[in-house]
Amino acid sequence: MAIVVTSIDRPDPAITARFAGLGVATVHEAQGRKGLLASYMRPIYRPAHIAGPAITCEVAPGDNWMIHVAVEQCQPGDILVVTPTSPCEDGYFGDLLGASLMRRGVKGLILDAGVRDAATLTEMGFPVWSKAVFAQGTVKETIGNVNLPVIAAGARIAPGDLIVADDDGVVVVRRIEAASVLEKSLAREDKEAKVRERLMAGELGLDIYGMRERLAQKGLRYVERAPEE
Amino acid sequence: MAIVVTSIDRPDPAITARFAGLGVATVHEAQGRKGLLASYMRPIYRPAHIAGPAITCEVAPGDNWMIHVAVEQCQPGDILVVTPTSPCEDGYFGDLLGASLMRRGVKGLILDAGVRDAATLTEMGFPVWSKAVFAQGTVKETIGNVNLPVIAAGARIAPGDLIVADDDGVVVVRRIEAASVLEKSLAREDKEAKVRERLMAGELGLDIYGMRERLAQKGLRYVERAPEE
Amino acid sequence: MAIVVTSIDRPDPAITARFAGLGVATVHEAQGRKGLLASYMRPIYRPAHIAGPAITCEVAPGDNWMIHVAVEQCQPGDILVVTPTSPCEDGYFGDLLGASLMRRGVKGLILDAGVRDAATLTEMGFPVWSKAVFAQGTVKETIGNVNLPVIAAGARIAPGDLIVADDDGVVVVRRIEAASVLEKSLAREDKEAKVRERLMAGELGLDIYGMRERLAQKGLRYVERAPEE
Amino acid sequence: MAIVVTSIDRPDPAITARFAGLGVATVHEAQGRKGLLASYMRPIYRPAHIAGPAITCEVAPGDNWMIHVAVEQCQPGDILVVTPTSPCEDGYFGDLLGASLMRRGVKGLILDAGVRDAATLTEMGFPVWSKAVFAQGTVKETIGNVNLPVIAAGARIAPGDLIVADDDGVVVVRRIEAASVLEKSLAREDKEAKVRERLMAGELGLDIYGMRERLAQKGLRYVERAPEE
Amino acid sequence: MAIVVTSIDRPDPAITARFAGLGVATVHEAQGRKGLLASYMRPIYRPAHIAGPAITCEVAPGDNWMIHVAVEQCQPGDILVVTPTSPCEDGYFGDLLGASLMRRGVKGLILDAGVRDAATLTEMGFPVWSKAVFAQGTVKETIGNVNLPVIAAGARIAPGDLIVADDDGVVVVRRIEAASVLEKSLAREDKEAKVRERLMAGELGLDIYGMRERLAQKGLRYVERAPEE
Amino acid sequence: MAIVVTSIDRPDPAITARFAGLGVATVHEAQGRKGLLASYMRPIYRPAHIAGPAITCEVAPGDNWMIHVAVEQCQPGDILVVTPTSPCEDGYFGDLLGASLMRRGVKGLILDAGVRDAATLTEMGFPVWSKAVFAQGTVKETIGNVNLPVIAAGARIAPGDLIVADDDGVVVVRRIEAASVLEKSLAREDKEAKVRERLMAGELGLDIYGMRERLAQKGLRYVERAPEE
Repeated sequence: MAIVVTSIDRPDPAITARFAGLGVATVHEAQGRKGLLASYMRPIYRPAHIAGPAITCEVAPGDNWMIHVAVEQCQPGDILVVTPTSPCEDGYFGDLLGASLMRRGVKGLILDAGVRDAATLTEMGFPVWSKAVFAQGTVKETIGNVNLPVIAAGARIAPGDLIVADDDGVVVVRRIEAASVLEKSLAREDKEAKVRERLMAGELGLDIYGMRERLAQKGLRYVERAPEE
Repeated sequence: MAIVVTSIDRPDPAITARFAGLGVATVHEAQGRKGLLASYMRPIYRPAHIAGPAITCEVAPGDNWMIHVAVEQCQPGDILVVTPTSPCEDGYFGDLLGASLMRRGVKGLILDAGVRDAATLTEMGFPVWSKAVFAQGTVKETIGNVNLPVIAAGARIAPGDLIVADDDGVVVVRRIEAASVLEKSLAREDKEAKVRERLMAGELGLDIYGMRERLAQKGLRYVERAPEE
Repeated sequence: MAIVVTSIDRPDPAITARFAGLGVATVHEAQGRKGLLASYMRPIYRPAHIAGPAITCEVAPGDNWMIHVAVEQCQPGDILVVTPTSPCEDGYFGDLLGASLMRRGVKGLILDAGVRDAATLTEMGFPVWSKAVFAQGTVKETIGNVNLPVIAAGARIAPGDLIVADDDGVVVVRRIEAASVLEKSLAREDKEAKVRERLMAGELGLDIYGMRERLAQKGLRYVERAPEE
Repeated sequence: MAIVVTSIDRPDPAITARFAGLGVATVHEAQGRKGLLASYMRPIYRPAHIAGPAITCEVAPGDNWMIHVAVEQCQPGDILVVTPTSPCEDGYFGDLLGASLMRRGVKGLILDAGVRDAATLTEMGFPVWSKAVFAQGTVKETIGNVNLPVIAAGARIAPGDLIVADDDGVVVVRRIEAASVLEKSLAREDKEAKVRERLMAGELGLDIYGMRERLAQKGLRYVERAPEE
Repeated sequence: MAIVVTSIDRPDPAITARFAGLGVATVHEAQGRKGLLASYMRPIYRPAHIAGPAITCEVAPGDNWMIHVAVEQCQPGDILVVTPTSPCEDGYFGDLLGASLMRRGVKGLILDAGVRDAATLTEMGFPVWSKAVFAQGTVKETIGNVNLPVIAAGARIAPGDLIVADDDGVVVVRRIEAASVLEKSLAREDKEAKVRERLMAGELGLDIYGMRERLAQKGLRYVERAPEE
Repeated sequence: MAIVVTSIDRPDPAITARFAGLGVATVHEAQGRKGLLASYMRPIYRPAHIAGPAITCEVAPGDNWMIHVAVEQCQPGDILVVTPTSPCEDGYFGDLLGASLMRRGVKGLILDAGVRDAATLTEMGFPVWSKAVFAQGTVKETIGNVNLPVIAAGARIAPGDLIVADDDGVVVVRRIEAASVLEKSLAREDKEAKVRERLMAGELGLDIYGMRERLAQKGLRYVERAPEE
């Protein structure tokens, strides 16, 4: 009825390490504006910023049993991704599971549902991106798949895909695209650093990006005063 | 048309005091997963953690008049619970009412509506759990009951019931069950402390809770690699 | 098709300066409970508090092109107001545009949509009130008006109107009413200071505001015990 | 762990029968504007109008097992009320359960969750008020109480309480208040019939209800033209 | 404190009459994609289609008093627009007010709140566009303005502006633009009729609108098979 | 930048034809409770029931250009699936595009956004499942992929996958699983027909499914009267 895949491919750790310094917005843009999870996925504390390969875990609504199974599949540096089979805000995860994941070196949790023990998890420094903070308890009755591809918060995540999460939300990079997206992200960062310098020096985006002509072609007109209504 | 009950029964203060150290998730579990308010009830600052008997106050939408009446019924250690008769996010409560409640020794406010003066209330250290932060003003035209049972954020709260609120939300414990829920909560805490120790030592929940056999019975299989799609 | 108005009237800077110390709730009440933006407009960090004249900017859904145009129209002390022509939570604004606005002396951004680079904007100390924090990128294809009146988060804002924003949300004051609203706001603050003093001394709002008689007339009764159900 | 109460008190059938002709708005007003379920409870087809005593059933999120238990407790004329222990939109109920309830003479279902087989239930003429129409399946793993008081869509419903549901939503009348609420509802209907007649004859509510003086006292002024802005 | 403007300018009735046959989408496009109310404004029955000048009415949350005042200001052919000063879903309007408006020849109601007696209003054939159907009662305590400009469901509506409402929602046309928007709407209808004919004959929009070249310029490529992932 | 795949594999038409009589709930259950789109996807009229292979189309927020491109890729019997790259409720689709699709023999539209001309589409009998009905217009500026896999309303849909939609919502069946899911769905229907017969004869689900023993084992107890509170 349900399976746990015990061996998954992860991106090159050297690549993953370099993603840790890249923002979600940068990575999302660099890979062609795809892979973003829904805007309701918010960190329980800020700032928070992690990157690592996904362990995926499917849970029934109101039932966190499979998280216990998934914990065993996590290796140091991994990020656990948990998603219910239908929308649910129950508190699937608390400080005990947090302690267990920290002990295993897991970097954080992406949970398309509710989290509880938010204060303790914050003190512990274990970052969680979730749909809600909610104390509602769950049962342990229904099995589900671990390490098969899932849809979480509107994005498809396969085990071993690279997750990047920061204050802006969560993005997933396909494992086989990790190297190329890294390169494009770094290039984008370089370019943005140069633009930032020019903006700080007082130049306008309108001029840096050469937008004025195209705006005029589209029909933008400048007038000193608003037309009489 | 509306009544104010001036004399209510409160739980034993010694019991209330011991709830102050217990988390909402723990109490909610200990009493059989009931009594939780909806997940939209969020504290205006974090961390925040209070426990105390409820003074209940019913208000009309967009009308905070009865809060002034309820203030007088509050005693030191109480928690004021305010709920509109139909959903409303207006700013029913601000720093003046906060000052008045603090002066009376009230521990905090549970408000199934909007709060305003959030910055000042935060500075003052007066905790509020609310549905929204919103400056929208209210009128003073319609009376309502004080200290009759209410439904707030989906939970039934009677005056004198015990409220516990922390970063995870808000839970209500029936007054007559306060002693037994305290006992069960403390037992749960003890048990969790032992589990936490074992988790920190590297044991897995799967083994601590003895889940492996039942998972297998339900049909969970471990495979090294995902089946070909 | 679209116009940019380059010359707008702003309120007297001396008046604007005095609004900077006034809370949104106070100003909203003082002007007769109007001009408040919807409760979903939240600051990316707290506390935050700004006041200044509005530069208004209309954008297409998922398209932030016109923000670049609007930046050029901003003067020191201004507040940029951006609103999409239909609801959208995309990340219209990030740290580069933030850097550009800070360089021009702009005090903050009111954005009825999503913002990204929230961590960097927080570090920079550039306050943004928005509907969402979301990394989703935008295109630059569609023109729109700058410095014509807009509806943002349910409120009408004309260029040069005074914006006040704090932890409670955002309020707009019509430019021609700025002086009178300032006066009423200061009067309200004085009055509230006196009430606060009396509350801190232990008096009740019921007495300070003389509510008891009217409550009784409306039918409020005090009973010692709840009637038997 | 969970109990089924097999013997409950119902209102006098003669009283229940007379509620069948009364609208939800009328009953809600007649009993002092209480007992209304949340506005998200909508009928799957319109028009629909039922009244009858409640059989209450508590279900876990994503788990409809207890509905099968509750069916057995239903008698002809009853209305089944089902509510999850935390918010859930899964499809707890379909045409098979509908057939079973119809066979038993049950008048309809109030479901604070999702329903499925909406087309077949509509054809069958079995009315359902629900939070959602959603095909999502549920499991049968967790037990819950039947015929204990529940909170459904924000209202408290005890077994044997009278439910009235129509196109405007759902209202609950406490069993012991059924007779008096019936009387007040009928009186209200009579009064409204007379007002309707006068309105149809062209009189205004302003005059029928004698509102003009009080409006003037509150400060309402009539002007021919809007003041210059 | 509040005023009722008794004399407003309406569009030429001949123009209004011709809008009655035009769809909301057509009018919205014809006037440059502005003036649309939020998507949550839905008709209580379908199909429904009306056009007429607006009488505007501001109400407090949970308080429908001013609707009674506004009724008197309505003339045959008018459309009443009611909006609360902060968001509210209460049932402000029912069949009695509906009867009163029908008697006066009013064409329908635009209500940025809840409506009740939906079944009776449907039978009567009095169309209402609202945010919710909800039986929740309201009080009569607070005055507000009638026939001053309002913001309803995110759009600004001045008294005498032209409202068009159909199954797609509600749009407002400024009174002074009514004639020109009518002309543009009719032109758009003509154009669409011709396009429809060509589409029915099997031509593609791609060819009718000549889109192929611009798509190619933007970088769209046709491939027979999807690239290997 | 974007591609259109012109040749896709569709399921065997004989299989597709047999799905047309199967409900969404049945198919969803038969394939192991997967593939359901979110509950907000609702038909513009009821009843409506279609089945066919998906043509997938990705659009930018507020931009319907690619729908014109996708129309050309549709063959008789297909179902067009349109999804924005970030959430949007604009009216991407109206009666002209509907006429074009009907002319091509397309069975219906699945649109994770808004639709307009709902009345005309209803008259035409062209079924649309959408997130909203909204007249808001869109631009034609940004290209996107046609016939690559998409995420729509939380489900992954590849071109050529089988879509089934009815009053309960929308489900997707992977193309290569269509035959086996058909078989399981028909088996489920047979089984349900037999259960329905027994239910109509007065048997209880408790007995038909043999639930009593397991309920007792889980701890369910029957009591005649509710325990004293």
